Amino acid sequence: MTATDDDRRSVEALRREGLIEPHEAHEATHDGSGRVLLSFAPAGRDVRVPPGVSVFDAASWNGIAIDSTCGGHGTCRKCKVQLTSGTSPITRHDVRTFSQTELADGWRLACLVKATRDLALTVPPLVTRPKASTVGVGRQVILRPNVQKRYVELDEPSLSDQRTDYERLTGALDDLDVRPDLHALRRLPTVLRASDFKVTAVVVDEDLIDVEPGDTTGRRFAVAFDLGTTTVVATLLDLDTGTPVAVASMLNRQQPFGGDVITRISATMMDPAALGRLQELAQSTLRDLVLEVCAEGGVQAGEVYEVALGGNATMTALLLGIDPEPLGVAPFIQSSADWPVLLGSDLGLGEAVHPRARAYVFPALGAYVGGDIVAGMLASGIDRDKRVRLFIDVGTNCEIVATDGERIVATAAPAGPAFEGGAIRCGMRAAEGAVEVVKLSDDDVTLGVIGDVDPVGICGSGLVDAVAELARVGLLDATGRFIPQEEAAARHTGLVDRLTAMGEERVFILHRPSPDAEPSECVYLSQRDVRELQFAKAAISTGWTLLLEELGVEAREVQQVLLAGSFGSYLSPASAIRVGLVPKLSVLRIVSAGNVAGEGAKMALLSARERAGAQALLTEVTYVELSDRPDFNDRFVDLLAFPS
Amino acid sequence: MTATDDDRRSVEALRREGLIEPHEAHEATHDGSGRVLLSFAPAGRDVRVPPGVSVFDAASWNGIAIDSTCGGHGTCRKCKVQLTSGTSPITRHDVRTFSQTELADGWRLACLVKATRDLALTVPPLVTRPKASTVGVGRQVILRPNVQKRYVELDEPSLSDQRTDYERLTGALDDLDVRPDLHALRRLPTVLRASDFKVTAVVVDEDLIDVEPGDTTGRRFAVAFDLGTTTVVATLLDLDTGTPVAVASMLNRQQPFGGDVITRISATMMDPAALGRLQELAQSTLRDLVLEVCAEGGVQAGEVYEVALGGNATMTALLLGIDPEPLGVAPFIQSSADWPVLLGSDLGLGEAVHPRARAYVFPALGAYVGGDIVAGMLASGIDRDKRVRLFIDVGTNCEIVATDGERIVATAAPAGPAFEGGAIRCGMRAAEGAVEVVKLSDDDVTLGVIGDVDPVGICGSGLVDAVAELARVGLLDATGRFIPQEEAAARHTGLVDRLTAMGEERVFILHRPSPDAEPSECVYLSQRDVRELQFAKAAISTGWTLLLEELGVEAREVQQVLLAGSFGSYLSPASAIRVGLVPKLSVLRIVSAGNVAGEGAKMALLSARERAGAQALLTEVTYVELSDRPDFNDRFVDLLAFPS
Repeated sequence: MTATDDDRRSVEALRREGLIEPHEAHEATHDGSGRVLLSFAPAGRDVRVPPGVSVFDAASWNGIAIDSTCGGHGTCRKCKVQLTSGTSPITRHDVRTFSQTELADGWRLACLVKATRDLALTVPPLVTRPKASTVGVGRQVILRPNVQKRYVELDEPSLSDQRTDYERLTGALDDLDVRPDLHALRRLPTVLRASDFKVTAVVVDEDLIDVEPGDTTGRRFAVAFDLGTTTVVATLLDLDTGTPVAVASMLNRQQPFGGDVITRISATMMDPAALGRLQELAQSTLRDLVLEVCAEGGVQAGEVYEVALGGNATMTALLLGIDPEPLGVAPFIQSSADWPVLLGSDLGLGEAVHPRARAYVFPALGAYVGGDIVAGMLASGIDRDKRVRLFIDVGTNCEIVATDGERIVATAAPAGPAFEGGAIRCGMRAAEGAVEVVKLSDDDVTLGVIGDVDPVGICGSGLVDAVAELARVGLLDATGRFIPQEEAAARHTGLVDRLTAMGEERVFILHRPSPDAEPSECVYLSQRDVRELQFAKAAISTGWTLLLEELGVEAREVQQVLLAGSFGSYLSPASAIRVGLVPKLSVLRIVSAGNVAGEGAKMALLSARERAGAQALLTEVTYVELSDRPDFNDRFVDLLAFPS
Repeated sequence: MTATDDDRRSVEALRREGLIEPHEAHEATHDGSGRVLLSFAPAGRDVRVPPGVSVFDAASWNGIAIDSTCGGHGTCRKCKVQLTSGTSPITRHDVRTFSQTELADGWRLACLVKATRDLALTVPPLVTRPKASTVGVGRQVILRPNVQKRYVELDEPSLSDQRTDYERLTGALDDLDVRPDLHALRRLPTVLRASDFKVTAVVVDEDLIDVEPGDTTGRRFAVAFDLGTTTVVATLLDLDTGTPVAVASMLNRQQPFGGDVITRISATMMDPAALGRLQELAQSTLRDLVLEVCAEGGVQAGEVYEVALGGNATMTALLLGIDPEPLGVAPFIQSSADWPVLLGSDLGLGEAVHPRARAYVFPALGAYVGGDIVAGMLASGIDRDKRVRLFIDVGTNCEIVATDGERIVATAAPAGPAFEGGAIRCGMRAAEGAVEVVKLSDDDVTLGVIGDVDPVGICGSGLVDAVAELARVGLLDATGRFIPQEEAAARHTGLVDRLTAMGEERVFILHRPSPDAEPSECVYLSQRDVRELQFAKAAISTGWTLLLEELGVEAREVQQVLLAGSFGSYLSPASAIRVGLVPKLSVLRIVSAGNVAGEGAKMALLSARERAGAQALLTEVTYVELSDRPDFNDRFVDLLAFPS
């Protein structure tokens, strides 16, 4: 037989029927636009997802459960759906699962259907209702952990059944296809024979990492890390129930090398030994946290089979032993956006976790929009929402994400250290004694102080509050200048004595330890402090202004602003609006999102599908470099003033 | 649109056209039968291969070169062939490579065409002629090493080109799709910036394992190991030219734990610490051999990117730290037949090779047909030949493979220690002073002695020679008994004084150190020694007899017998025929194959396609357990006698 018109016809038929995916549908370069519509019946849910994601993932992301025991690897053949509109290529797994008639009727395995065009599909009723857990910013996550266990009772080998131990075990794993890990192959002969061939297989992703005597299926744990520049948080998760078992946090032990990423990068540039030292300090921080949560939770090291970690690009590089210098100097280049499958030992966790525990490190969108932000985007469901939203992680480096419900854009704005208390005369971190809330009445000042002690300084949220309140009562004008003393005296009899001068500079006294204390002994806000805050908030508002322009959206159209990070969570929405740090919206639209990086790490452990969603963000989100834009400085100057 | 007749029609059309592979063609359970025929034009070669192998591999295995730079990973899109008879599914890589017209004309990428049915195809003329090397038993291997290097000169990053270092590098690797290894990601930022972004990427399989400053493409090395129970051989290969650079061998340092696999397995059963010790001894043997060949070849440790190793199942288990006990006791079970991708460090090579060097360990067909035999099958091309062939690796455990040119069957026969000199009165290993050749004339004995010194004992090949010669001259009868003294005196005047008695037992003196030496001071062959040899050769001949029966082939139809292993290579074909160790054929059909395990390991390093061929043997070869067969003992007794 020669290749003839028959072949030609069939190729064209295939294309027409969508059974060969068209050229452009493969590994499409997602620019965030051109989402496809999936209509799920009988749930009656329409969801829009980036082209190329699996129908199974799209359903999971939207809380629509489809039967599955393998978690979406194409091996259990349970995730049956029927396409009622649109087609999808028939895979070999489909051929093995469905009859010809069923295939022709549109039946497919959901985990193998790529949403490359609009589809309508029917999901059969669930055979088993999967567990779910609420994580992140109110996200309902269907539990599909990457760590799976299967208890099996195997036939003992004989001369007429000489299958290898590995074949014997995998032959009994009817819904999982696995690859062996040397560690498991080492343990197999011994464990099988010590436990009468009744064992539990431990599978992470598709790797058989261990085999345990007896039935240990109820014991599956993982640790989620939020690796912050300042604080590191570890959460021990029970993967069987989806609940946190124990949480611990400590200061990042790299602190002695500097309080922010730039000083730590500088340390590595000055001393060749610093990188190794910083790596070891990060590792020991993580290791000790794992030991702490495991001790608290009554969990053995060998029961922690996976960890996930969200950190900014510099923290991630230092942890992995990668020279961070290119991150710190223009043009700000990462070694890699994404990471291969790592082991706990690659993160220095050594014997604190299972020897073959896997480590998932969140990928980054850029040198200054790191894995912590990708984790935060996952936790906040930024890509699963039709609303116009802003996500702002306020800090020395401020990461901003904007979406119009279709496209997602992100950038980083150099806000400087003001929010961390840096470059502020009485600035301090959010620790005991820090003023975190400031309220002004016509004649008095009410302060909220961390630890309810005498105030010793002012932290970021107090700074924003103070400036916002001073602007509200008119002691600061729209340009950020303290009004003249005479004018203040005329209008603010009760506050005017707090407005005074220290040398050349005017200051506002927030707290006077004793009636006759000198201004320098007080907690105060100086004119220069106000300027620092203006610079910081202008950087941020320039960021979101340009991102919203990129999307063609007006600031007033924003339906929600998520304030992320430890600082963002404490910020007063009203004050943030007043100083112009966020768009002028109803305060109800400004939401504290909490520690979203840690929540994202938890989600990645609870659901391999959610993890796939985080990975999809890498192609879905467009990174916008602000320092490259000719209009940046103009906007910045415009936005220094407070909004009217 | 609803799934309708259109869909149904297209599914059926797909099947008809072969564009959806039929059910049974997927992951076919190869039983060695049902090979498919591939006809290559213009070479005019017809080859038969097991179903499921790629056309690219099938061509490579048969010395037919098809253009490719990626080596068969589906990424370079150069291995274009045109199907002139038969069809193959269109893959997405095909869609990206060919026009619609070309696809309809049968053009496909050869590495993605699975030979699931008979095909005829045309291979375009080569653009570049690939290098080839002669390895194994006269095998011509097209060089397609798993280790690839690419020199690239990259644009430096800028604010308008903020691609990560990894994206920048991989963007320049136009014919390879790679995955990152953490080691490479650690090195990237530093190496790129230290070498003006002119670097060489080191890719093993699909893993980017390193990046080196400047152009190092000419330096690619690997080490092939033959890990024998007695002797370990290492060959340093230049992967660029396919030539061996240096060879070294040493005794396996596990020797103090016993001379054969059973004693070493016993050692681990008696002492829990022995496994660790044996593992370390094997590792140190390999490590020191690598250091030796690298020193001799002028090659740095970091330039050895891959190793391959063939060893029997016990040696492999001990090297990998796997309890060998189940290998040593019925029903003889391995932990696993096959191994995941390992690192040099998993073999204890540590700093003797590149830190991320990959290690390929040959898979095994059974506890007693190990990776050394699979390597030997590869080296001898046992599956690439239409002839009826036997492959016999003679040793304490004797591995036998038989093929009729279509099916391949294998077994192990417990020959006992006779061939290693064990259980033989004057037996010794093939070392200095060992009688290795024996010739009898009517009245004298001529001995070949290793090292041309006075004989001190007799090794395996000498034993076979001696028995064969004594049978030939009639001093041993067909049942293996020395003929009566009077009868000998009547017929063999020159030899009769050598036939004497030691206590109860009759012996034949091979060498008398002095005219008046006592028999016990001589090198002799005893009646019991003859019996030992008879048991050994009967075990072997029972093995191949049953295998040939399995194939339905008569012994006289065998066209070639390959004698493998260090002992087999020294065996006299005439003597082997005489004692019945091999079928009665022309001596020209009995071929010494040499160190085929080591040759197979070299082939696996020189060609990823050949390695795929070794893996294919796992499913292609049927293992036959002899100890389970009711007819084994009958045959064994029948075959104790010498052939007439």
